Amino acid sequence: MNFRLTDEQILFRNMAREFSEKNIRPLAKDIDRNEQIPLSLLKGMAELGLLGVTIPETYGGPGGDAVLAAVGAMEVARGDVSMAVPVYYLLEAGWSVVINKYGSEEAKKELLPAIAKGDNFLGIATTEPGGGSDLANLKTTAVRKGDKFIINGEKAFYSGHRECEQIGRGGHMTLLRTDLSKGTKGFSFVYVPYNCPGMKYTHYNHLGRKGFSTGGMTYENVEVPAYYLMGEENRGYNYAMDGFSLARTLVASACIGAAERALELGMDYIKTREAFGQPIARFEGIQFELANDYAMLEMVRTAVLKAAWLYDEIQRGGDATISELNLQMGISKLMAPQVAFDIFKHVMMWYGGAGYNTDVELGMGLNGILSYLAGAEGALNIMRIIIGKELLGKEFMPVS
Amino acid sequence: MNFRLTDEQILFRNMAREFSEKNIRPLAKDIDRNEQIPLSLLKGMAELGLLGVTIPETYGGPGGDAVLAAVGAMEVARGDVSMAVPVYYLLEAGWSVVINKYGSEEAKKELLPAIAKGDNFLGIATTEPGGGSDLANLKTTAVRKGDKFIINGEKAFYSGHRECEQIGRGGHMTLLRTDLSKGTKGFSFVYVPYNCPGMKYTHYNHLGRKGFSTGGMTYENVEVPAYYLMGEENRGYNYAMDGFSLARTLVASACIGAAERALELGMDYIKTREAFGQPIARFEGIQFELANDYAMLEMVRTAVLKAAWLYDEIQRGGDATISELNLQMGISKLMAPQVAFDIFKHVMMWYGGAGYNTDVELGMGLNGILSYLAGAEGALNIMRIIIGKELLGKEFMPVS
Amino acid sequence: MNFRLTDEQILFRNMAREFSEKNIRPLAKDIDRNEQIPLSLLKGMAELGLLGVTIPETYGGPGGDAVLAAVGAMEVARGDVSMAVPVYYLLEAGWSVVINKYGSEEAKKELLPAIAKGDNFLGIATTEPGGGSDLANLKTTAVRKGDKFIINGEKAFYSGHRECEQIGRGGHMTLLRTDLSKGTKGFSFVYVPYNCPGMKYTHYNHLGRKGFSTGGMTYENVEVPAYYLMGEENRGYNYAMDGFSLARTLVASACIGAAERALELGMDYIKTREAFGQPIARFEGIQFELANDYAMLEMVRTAVLKAAWLYDEIQRGGDATISELNLQMGISKLMAPQVAFDIFKHVMMWYGGAGYNTDVELGMGLNGILSYLAGAEGALNIMRIIIGKELLGKEFMPVS
Amino acid sequence: MNFRLTDEQILFRNMAREFSEKNIRPLAKDIDRNEQIPLSLLKGMAELGLLGVTIPETYGGPGGDAVLAAVGAMEVARGDVSMAVPVYYLLEAGWSVVINKYGSEEAKKELLPAIAKGDNFLGIATTEPGGGSDLANLKTTAVRKGDKFIINGEKAFYSGHRECEQIGRGGHMTLLRTDLSKGTKGFSFVYVPYNCPGMKYTHYNHLGRKGFSTGGMTYENVEVPAYYLMGEENRGYNYAMDGFSLARTLVASACIGAAERALELGMDYIKTREAFGQPIARFEGIQFELANDYAMLEMVRTAVLKAAWLYDEIQRGGDATISELNLQMGISKLMAPQVAFDIFKHVMMWYGGAGYNTDVELGMGLNGILSYLAGAEGALNIMRIIIGKELLGKEFMPVS
Repeated sequence: MNFRLTDEQILFRNMAREFSEKNIRPLAKDIDRNEQIPLSLLKGMAELGLLGVTIPETYGGPGGDAVLAAVGAMEVARGDVSMAVPVYYLLEAGWSVVINKYGSEEAKKELLPAIAKGDNFLGIATTEPGGGSDLANLKTTAVRKGDKFIINGEKAFYSGHRECEQIGRGGHMTLLRTDLSKGTKGFSFVYVPYNCPGMKYTHYNHLGRKGFSTGGMTYENVEVPAYYLMGEENRGYNYAMDGFSLARTLVASACIGAAERALELGMDYIKTREAFGQPIARFEGIQFELANDYAMLEMVRTAVLKAAWLYDEIQRGGDATISELNLQMGISKLMAPQVAFDIFKHVMMWYGGAGYNTDVELGMGLNGILSYLAGAEGALNIMRIIIGKELLGKEFMPVS
Repeated sequence: MNFRLTDEQILFRNMAREFSEKNIRPLAKDIDRNEQIPLSLLKGMAELGLLGVTIPETYGGPGGDAVLAAVGAMEVARGDVSMAVPVYYLLEAGWSVVINKYGSEEAKKELLPAIAKGDNFLGIATTEPGGGSDLANLKTTAVRKGDKFIINGEKAFYSGHRECEQIGRGGHMTLLRTDLSKGTKGFSFVYVPYNCPGMKYTHYNHLGRKGFSTGGMTYENVEVPAYYLMGEENRGYNYAMDGFSLARTLVASACIGAAERALELGMDYIKTREAFGQPIARFEGIQFELANDYAMLEMVRTAVLKAAWLYDEIQRGGDATISELNLQMGISKLMAPQVAFDIFKHVMMWYGGAGYNTDVELGMGLNGILSYLAGAEGALNIMRIIIGKELLGKEFMPVS
Repeated sequence: MNFRLTDEQILFRNMAREFSEKNIRPLAKDIDRNEQIPLSLLKGMAELGLLGVTIPETYGGPGGDAVLAAVGAMEVARGDVSMAVPVYYLLEAGWSVVINKYGSEEAKKELLPAIAKGDNFLGIATTEPGGGSDLANLKTTAVRKGDKFIINGEKAFYSGHRECEQIGRGGHMTLLRTDLSKGTKGFSFVYVPYNCPGMKYTHYNHLGRKGFSTGGMTYENVEVPAYYLMGEENRGYNYAMDGFSLARTLVASACIGAAERALELGMDYIKTREAFGQPIARFEGIQFELANDYAMLEMVRTAVLKAAWLYDEIQRGGDATISELNLQMGISKLMAPQVAFDIFKHVMMWYGGAGYNTDVELGMGLNGILSYLAGAEGALNIMRIIIGKELLGKEFMPVS
Repeated sequence: MNFRLTDEQILFRNMAREFSEKNIRPLAKDIDRNEQIPLSLLKGMAELGLLGVTIPETYGGPGGDAVLAAVGAMEVARGDVSMAVPVYYLLEAGWSVVINKYGSEEAKKELLPAIAKGDNFLGIATTEPGGGSDLANLKTTAVRKGDKFIINGEKAFYSGHRECEQIGRGGHMTLLRTDLSKGTKGFSFVYVPYNCPGMKYTHYNHLGRKGFSTGGMTYENVEVPAYYLMGEENRGYNYAMDGFSLARTLVASACIGAAERALELGMDYIKTREAFGQPIARFEGIQFELANDYAMLEMVRTAVLKAAWLYDEIQRGGDATISELNLQMGISKLMAPQVAFDIFKHVMMWYGGAGYNTDVELGMGLNGILSYLAGAEGALNIMRIIIGKELLGKEFMPVS
């Protein structure tokens, strides 16, 4: 056993932390207010190898593994606790892996180098209106016609429509029903450029994480070239689940980074703020809450790193299993948003009125984390179902 | 024992509920966005006897007691879960009682009828910068000079500066040090009109409850007539604590009302939203959380009504004691914001992505309640100290 | 509204408390160790009108209502936190009401005066092996034959087999299937004397609440006279549910009383035990837990009294509904065991090693309460289903 | 990073698990009932290298490190959830390390081989009556007289007096004041054989963990040879704290093992027990609690292994610090007993009445874990103070 990052990973972490503190944190409030991440920031992240951290060197990236991507997500989130920049970051890191593993050579050559440079946004669209986490009921269809797929349907809770416009290039992975006679075994996973004829977008007014746009989209006879298909037709559900294993681990990582920042803000505050004749850090009512919070945070941080490590072990052909990964990823996505949300809540209570305004990062963080507590990237109850399934067996699943 | 409201109280509740649903709820989102309550709404509430509900008939009010004021707070909050209108309402209801009990006849005649009509805002300013709930360290002073007090100092977290401007008339109760040689026994409690020469206001950018302004203020040689003094000089701490007993009970009531609304929204949603082939209300993961939440809400609602009833019993000369009231009010202000916040969080999780935007009331409610969780009207730890003091005795207080 | 007990109720409470402290508490540890309540104690309770408190004066009892029975349960439990004497008490108080409401005149005359005197044990047997709270699957049958019922089947988790032997007279209410073609509408509710030919008992080695025996029983062609039938044939499910409404409320009351005692023990201890130079009561880590616990306990105590009051209102023909009672009883039985268990756990932690032995009452209390947390008188999840059903409607029940 | 045990560690774990399931589990209930561990079992553990697992080969042990000792503690606790055998095991494993690190060669030669063979019990006695975790107030003294120490004073909560008698050889490490003029810098740490003239023992009636005796002891002019002194005089506090770092980690490990066993029992039960027409495992009310519990257990298990690994890293001269170890050990001892206790409670609730008796292991486990929740090996609040001190600095400690 070894609970330490390697020297190389520590170097990357320090580099990411420095960049995050110098370049992301000072912009975070404006990103939230203006509801947009500056292109220059994304380019800066790309230059550093932070954006597209998982893209192999062959395709212009630094070739980092899941652990490195998780470390990066923590650091980016320490700079922007609203989760806007971290989520942008982790979509690129997570779904690039899927393109790299399952995409055609043509797609990889076209997309990965551009993603690594920050020139091509890469998003994900699986959820449909009214569908939530119940993916088996997917209604959007794709029909193969020669070297094209014709797509019709509607997706919801897609993040990135404004960012594609902003960059001028981008697209998303989408899950489509290519064989109507089968359930999830009739799904295919396809990359779709954002500006194909027949696509329309709507915009949601999110409560938080405002720097990264979210909305719905409709496909009306949208044509995409067949080389954008991931792997084999009708096996897309598995590729999407693979991607979600990583993406959920990275979302959990981002929650951890934001919570670390909140605890640091909290500790700084309680050491200097005095009441009843002493720094409030000395009151057990506050210090014991900090101790509990730190304990939970340390435990979830390790759990998330273990999930990423299991992802890498599977990639490396080690003895880790998908079942193990599902459990550990489920634990991470179940616990990290809860722990992070509670920490923001507690630190807000330590600040009292002084924290209840838009000049400190706390509210931005609490409302950003709330998105992942409320269900983005998989509701907590879905995580419980995933864990229950691995522990008890498929025959005991509470839903069918 | 009798756990029912009287017929008269039920009539008032129904009237308030109808008004709240028809007149407050449709405006609530705009109030939050525009950061202002329309004067016409306040006038409407005044006409109905909702604003200034506790003001005696002699002074133009309906003469309601604390229970009635609490019932009103619940109903107003069911209309505006952001807490802006409810807090406006409860400041008038709560601090009018203090003016009526301790104010000079001159002050009562001047202020109470105007408050009852919505023509005079009444606020409260006790907290000072860096002071929080530690009132004993109060620094603002008042010096008596003939028939005037000269006030110097600074207050923080005062709500109402913009509302005074909006109405053109108003002021606040303020706690001042009139005898420097004593602790809390040297405090006086005085009404101060908002626009006295020498007063300056700052504005905070609150996270939530945005429809009701909050900021700081400074007094520089501010002169107020002595008839604005409540009761006797140097006994102001007791009058302020009396007022806070009621105000905290009403804040707790408002949290209850908002949480009731959230649960109703939640129940409507889970009965209609389907996933995995059935309404999600049928899933124990959701239904059991609802059952737990309802149990807590029902218990806190009764606790808050009991606190209000004890306040009234003391007024009526019944056998209730201040100690009992302190305990019950402490319980109410400790538990109501926690229970309400959790309910908003849970309902947000039932909605999933569909609730995470500014088109539903949930985020507005969660961020509004957060203010009272984080410490407005007394931090939760202060409530624990109050409860601990009553149970164990003053000699076991953890702070001195 | 009125949150006070009447003077008469207070007199009863004081009398019960005095008896409990003088006569029950000194025996409690021996009752637990010897696994038996002395007959003299039961007789003493009977003389005072505590045993059979709900039996009308016509039948030799004091004619108390549900509120009085609840108050008595709290006081008895303050004397015996193991729950043995309180549960004995509440079975008599609760199921006597059912006999009085639904029993034949013959049964009432024969049983109620004897119960009131402590000369006839009255228990309840509904649960069957493997059945738990799922009563609809009841398998025990009764066939009417002239003026008798012939009973065959098996019951589990029945309390009182040793007590019947000890007193030499007693029996239990039992739920039986009299019409096999219907579900719960084919059940009848019948009193069965303990020593009918054809009855056999087994004994369980309970973890706690050891002073009151529990075991299983089998009926093999057991004959009981038809006048032991409650109300009409095939309507027994309703009568049993009526009885459980009251019995569950009284179980919750007993949990409250035990928890009150635990908190008192805890407060005495932390005021005198010193560490790091001061009484540990002054440490926020302990005092704040006490404040939270007291808040919960006060809220549940009021909830339980409200449930009892609703039961009485329905009896009195007031405007309370069965639905309201179900909700309030569900809340009480859901929350009281949880709150009481947590309080015993916390007080144990305040005591540290000093509480971890059989010389203090804490362990006996924790293990006794555990029985009601684990499911006796209805599992917590069943309470959640009851609450959910009342809030959402029968069509949203998670089980069918 | 590497989250896997080595092949060698896995071999040891499998061996320990097999032994535990075959040889400990079948005896566990009798050990609890008879309040004694059979000597043959201890000898069996010794032969396997389980007892004294940390003793170097030079002294007849297998030379395991802290990780191996932690793995062993988990496995032993899976066999005896009452914690009696696991705590016996961990005292030997933990305090042998201290003798090996700080003891004189004479003491090592005399004691370690005998401990490894199960022929010499090794216990710990630091707590004093009324002292609890507040070690700085230690009152027991030792005065050096030639090559002896003369000890006078009293210790409390010492485990092992009956076991020493049973084996006929044994003793304990004790913390003594050798320089009255200093605080913790005047303490020495000494081994004391159990049967020195002048020693008297009392016995406590523990609630649980009954198979391993606990009581108090007094020293009246007890003479022990000076070679039993650990390291230097007046530096004993540090040696004791070193030992507690390890012992607390091992206590946390034992809690994990017991909780694993409880979850396994629970999963077996809910898969087979049916209600409302299906195995209760399919009800979200139960399955989601399992998922939450498993998530917590997996996180704490990893936290505990990390603490052990940090202990080893420090021994190996790696870059880990005492501060890091204190944090991680504090987290482990804070969280493991809480998580384990909750799991036993939850599984008891899944079982319902079927688990509430002495025939299943659950009650024995719950009451055993309770000892470590209530404070044995350091109260939870002490763990919070340790964590707070490392995070905030000594100057913010809430106690002095």
